[in-house]
Amino acid sequence: MANLDMFFKPNAIAVIGANNKELTIPYRIISNLQAYGFKGPIYPVHPKEKVVKELPAFPSILDTPGPVDLAHIILRRDLVPATIRDCAKKGVKGVVVNTSGFSETGPEGKKLEDELRDLGRSLGVRVFGPNCQGMMNTDLDHPLYSNFTFARIKPGHISILAQGGGVAEVLNSYLSEAGVGIRMYASNGNACDVSIPEILEYWDADPETHVMVLHLESFADPKAFLDVVSKIKKPILGMKSGTTPEGARAVASHTGRLMAEDTITDILFDECGVLRFRTAQELCEAAIAFANQPLPKGRKLGIVTNAGSPAILATDEAVPLGLALPDPTEKTQTLLREKLFATSSVHNPVDMMATATPENWATAVEAVVKDGTYDIVTTSFITPFFVDCEGVARELARIHRENPELPFLVCLMTNPLWEKTRKILADAGLPTYYFPESAARAAAALADMADLKARAKGKVPELKVDRDAVAKLLAAAPDGFLPAEKASEVLRLYGLPVAREKWCASADAVPAAAKEIGYPVVLKAHATALVHKTEAGAVAVNLGDEKALRAALDGMTKSIGKVDAFQVQEFVAGGTEVAVGAVRAEGLGATVMFGLGGIYIEALHDVRFGLAPLTDLGAESMIRRLKFGKLLGPFRGKPGVDQAKLRDVLLRVGRLVADHPVIAEMDLNPVLAFPDGARTRVADVRLRVAK
Amino acid sequence: MANLDMFFKPNAIAVIGANNKELTIPYRIISNLQAYGFKGPIYPVHPKEKVVKELPAFPSILDTPGPVDLAHIILRRDLVPATIRDCAKKGVKGVVVNTSGFSETGPEGKKLEDELRDLGRSLGVRVFGPNCQGMMNTDLDHPLYSNFTFARIKPGHISILAQGGGVAEVLNSYLSEAGVGIRMYASNGNACDVSIPEILEYWDADPETHVMVLHLESFADPKAFLDVVSKIKKPILGMKSGTTPEGARAVASHTGRLMAEDTITDILFDECGVLRFRTAQELCEAAIAFANQPLPKGRKLGIVTNAGSPAILATDEAVPLGLALPDPTEKTQTLLREKLFATSSVHNPVDMMATATPENWATAVEAVVKDGTYDIVTTSFITPFFVDCEGVARELARIHRENPELPFLVCLMTNPLWEKTRKILADAGLPTYYFPESAARAAAALADMADLKARAKGKVPELKVDRDAVAKLLAAAPDGFLPAEKASEVLRLYGLPVAREKWCASADAVPAAAKEIGYPVVLKAHATALVHKTEAGAVAVNLGDEKALRAALDGMTKSIGKVDAFQVQEFVAGGTEVAVGAVRAEGLGATVMFGLGGIYIEALHDVRFGLAPLTDLGAESMIRRLKFGKLLGPFRGKPGVDQAKLRDVLLRVGRLVADHPVIAEMDLNPVLAFPDGARTRVADVRLRVAK
Repeated sequence: MANLDMFFKPNAIAVIGANNKELTIPYRIISNLQAYGFKGPIYPVHPKEKVVKELPAFPSILDTPGPVDLAHIILRRDLVPATIRDCAKKGVKGVVVNTSGFSETGPEGKKLEDELRDLGRSLGVRVFGPNCQGMMNTDLDHPLYSNFTFARIKPGHISILAQGGGVAEVLNSYLSEAGVGIRMYASNGNACDVSIPEILEYWDADPETHVMVLHLESFADPKAFLDVVSKIKKPILGMKSGTTPEGARAVASHTGRLMAEDTITDILFDECGVLRFRTAQELCEAAIAFANQPLPKGRKLGIVTNAGSPAILATDEAVPLGLALPDPTEKTQTLLREKLFATSSVHNPVDMMATATPENWATAVEAVVKDGTYDIVTTSFITPFFVDCEGVARELARIHRENPELPFLVCLMTNPLWEKTRKILADAGLPTYYFPESAARAAAALADMADLKARAKGKVPELKVDRDAVAKLLAAAPDGFLPAEKASEVLRLYGLPVAREKWCASADAVPAAAKEIGYPVVLKAHATALVHKTEAGAVAVNLGDEKALRAALDGMTKSIGKVDAFQVQEFVAGGTEVAVGAVRAEGLGATVMFGLGGIYIEALHDVRFGLAPLTDLGAESMIRRLKFGKLLGPFRGKPGVDQAKLRDVLLRVGRLVADHPVIAEMDLNPVLAFPDGARTRVADVRLRVAK
Repeated sequence: MANLDMFFKPNAIAVIGANNKELTIPYRIISNLQAYGFKGPIYPVHPKEKVVKELPAFPSILDTPGPVDLAHIILRRDLVPATIRDCAKKGVKGVVVNTSGFSETGPEGKKLEDELRDLGRSLGVRVFGPNCQGMMNTDLDHPLYSNFTFARIKPGHISILAQGGGVAEVLNSYLSEAGVGIRMYASNGNACDVSIPEILEYWDADPETHVMVLHLESFADPKAFLDVVSKIKKPILGMKSGTTPEGARAVASHTGRLMAEDTITDILFDECGVLRFRTAQELCEAAIAFANQPLPKGRKLGIVTNAGSPAILATDEAVPLGLALPDPTEKTQTLLREKLFATSSVHNPVDMMATATPENWATAVEAVVKDGTYDIVTTSFITPFFVDCEGVARELARIHRENPELPFLVCLMTNPLWEKTRKILADAGLPTYYFPESAARAAAALADMADLKARAKGKVPELKVDRDAVAKLLAAAPDGFLPAEKASEVLRLYGLPVAREKWCASADAVPAAAKEIGYPVVLKAHATALVHKTEAGAVAVNLGDEKALRAALDGMTKSIGKVDAFQVQEFVAGGTEVAVGAVRAEGLGATVMFGLGGIYIEALHDVRFGLAPLTDLGAESMIRRLKFGKLLGPFRGKPGVDQAKLRDVLLRVGRLVADHPVIAEMDLNPVLAFPDGARTRVADVRLRVAK
């Protein structure tokens, strides 16, 4: 692991390009360092100025009196390389190149940036940036505001890493103004040398960082991200810009890099256990929960409230996010009925009405916390004038202190007149939210992260497959799509449940083949010229006997003309359609995709990915974390499909593409799933070879 | 329209049940009235106290010295009726029954509540509540805080109506603390007499109310809601609790009313032009935009920013919400290239970089506003130390003032150090948001409301249909599902494009029927015992000639046994499946439903409703406002379907169910839509008669 102390805990800082103009970046960096109480010397460097912001200035970094481990460089881009050479001579360990005009401007800038990086590496100077803000640290021993921005920072446990300075500032300001605070902060712009994975890894080792927040516009090196970030233990909450074509274009215009395809982000985040968020606000609200709360053991949420209607908003938000809201045990309900006002609801949400006293709150929350039913507890707390709200807050703080293993969130619906109430909760490390839905979403994020982290403990299981036979078959195949017959054979050799089928070179052989498979059958005519088999009448399904088969066969022979081969397949009626795919991702190897087929993938983008070979828990998580995965479970009176069998299909596909890198892509679509796993069938397969 | 001045602009208020205990509801109401500067007399009423909160108290409402038009009643529920009688004697025009213990507690309470309502009506006293908070008014001539809550209110243009007191408080506190302010406020609990539609209608006539925010837990009277609210001109932003079964159960436990089915809300909100929101925060953020901004003419959004990465977040949020982000015209791009820094992006978002001066901002925003391309403009504004941010704010304020017809939103990413900048924007009536995605969502809400309001201008078109023939056919039918043959006939008489078909009582007649329809055909065997025709082999599709037909016919005859009738249908290959339905909604008459079929309806609930008969614009809006409606347009290389033809299908179905109330429900599923509208076919229909 790289030691980045020179950036986050420097002992002495030079600001090269400093001057006395107030509205400039170097002046602002010096002001920020001073105002935030940097403990070491700050050396302004300027060819002529003797004093900058009351500090002695020096004509060159080489003239500074003491050792320097960090230097900001704010000079014209063509002056940067020579300055880095001087820094190396001086023994500077890291430089922050704030200057812009590098890879974000096009090929010429990219070349200059590569030169910077190579120069730094050859001289042993780490380069942060270019085209970047800098970093901050709220550690009391190393207070550092080495950045030209304007957020008022407050110490906390959330570390923020964002490529784009604007988003970094938005996240940071929100969390600091919300009173939650941050631990460290980095916005490293073009990231030519010091990389995002390196910074995350460095923070993973920082005991005061409880959660990391990551905003990306592009992956510089997906493989490096995967290798490093997948080993990180602390939770990472991530966002990636450019999820729409319009947004991706704007990313491109902004950073000179286009990644229209969002898939790689899903793959990397899923594999690395990075929980992905859609909006900056949802990300921040989740971070507030992660800053001080443990991960839950499950998805059961208990709500206690003194106002019914807001708790219903929380309920309506929580349920579609996959949280369950079971009632408390009978014993707890009886206790609550005895101790609370008669008008209270003792179900979930437990609703005590606005008049609830601190004692009522203590009774209800303690009962719910100790009930054993819940993995997460939230309280929906409105602050009436006629209640001792500070007393309520003290009870909540106490219960949280006595039950630190249970994630506890508070929806505090109030205004600044109740600042003391808020402070009691904040001092207890209780995350507070204004809107009930926000608390519900944050609770769901905690549960989602627990799910994602559990996946990391999976094992790649042993599977009985005929690896050698497939290797031989693929070695003999030319580049391009395998003939359907061969593709089926490959799947069969890996134990995948391909529909029974026979291939016949001529019509004469078809009836015998059908008899062997057993009626009803599907008949398909294959001919090079046919693109849409169904519309051309080259597919006949549910042929119940030989007569029906012969009729269909005659029809096809007549209407299509030259047929290369007939495929006779068992007819699989019903079943839930899912799709399994595999594709190689640049630099990452083979990935397996799972989705609910058709429009779920194309229009709703409801797919999950895993790197091959898959682990047992990885495959399970791909199925469980589908957005519309409930369609696989018992749904509207239909029984659920056998998910263990689907998991087995995913594992075998993962094994297959991991074993045989010549498989460029595969598409098992549809796979028909049934409540009885033995009926599961791959109904169609495409497999492309590229050597 | 009911005059509710006695509630919102009373001249004298009695508080019946007042006392000197600080932590009680009546004491708090009196304190709030005093603190908020109520201009008339306040009369505490208590059997023994002589003075309450320094005001002379009276033993009965009848003893108060001057006229009283409003009375709060906070007494045991059994004392309320006699008190209302006294109020009537005194000439009180309205009573607010804060007391709880009525319909929310069960049948006995409901009976008491009905008695209250009837008593009030017989005596000419309007009843607000019971089990409610009260109301507020920030009108400078009628300052009124007739409520026991704790929000710090600020005058503004948003009026809030929420059944549940907790949610009312959450909405109000948020808007008032955000500095946007409210106009009037009502939380009327059980709403036994003064109803939600009445209050909305009253506010529609209030010139200072620009937008109404509505939170419902249940509809007391859907028909009254429809009749009144559909005539309201001002925008209403709505929310309804209980969208999940868990939430609905909680609503029920809270208010004694269960409405598991969310459909009625969609119908009523759509018909009344109420824009529905999913979360309280999205509702509030939209309200901030509606408070001072006009509705846009279209959905084209222009973004100007001084920070690239946050503008990309806004873009990624806006596009899936159906906003378009076209580039400025060439002319504008040229102008921007000339006037802005070279590193700026002159596309959309226009990105000027952090160093942009007030002059740069003025140039860019003015160019975009005057470009003619955009219906809404947002600026994504981060406040650097080295820029005159107040100058930027003044330019934005000026441009907004000079272009009041264009909705203008600001994303202001800053902290309280820039309070003056914020104030300049707020004073100019510019809505500001912290997160870029919030501004994008608010912009989309403005556009959605414009769409919804446009629908109200629709006309019910004349259609050529054979009403009498259908009436005759339906009159002859018994209750229950019409035979498929008859159902098809009904559709055909209303000009609906039913697939061509023939019905044959015996197998012998089938070949001739197929010949008449023209190959390829579909053959279906109908038998009472058959439930799943496809799985039983009773459906054969794409039969290309007589031989194939005969083979299928033989197969069916053998495998099924007794067949009641054979249906021979034209085979429609391909097409996009949609579903059209009709059902009667309690108290509202017939409604038409449109969706994308199958899982879009069942799992994604992506359906739209309209009351029959539909208007042209109403039908169009049902299609356009589908969440996944993009699947009907050109999508991933497929051409779009003929939407005018779909609209015609909806109009005819609406006409049919409006003309014939004996049609209890109908299901046209699937309807196959094509780019060539003439190919559109209703492939299956079910029609149930109930007399």
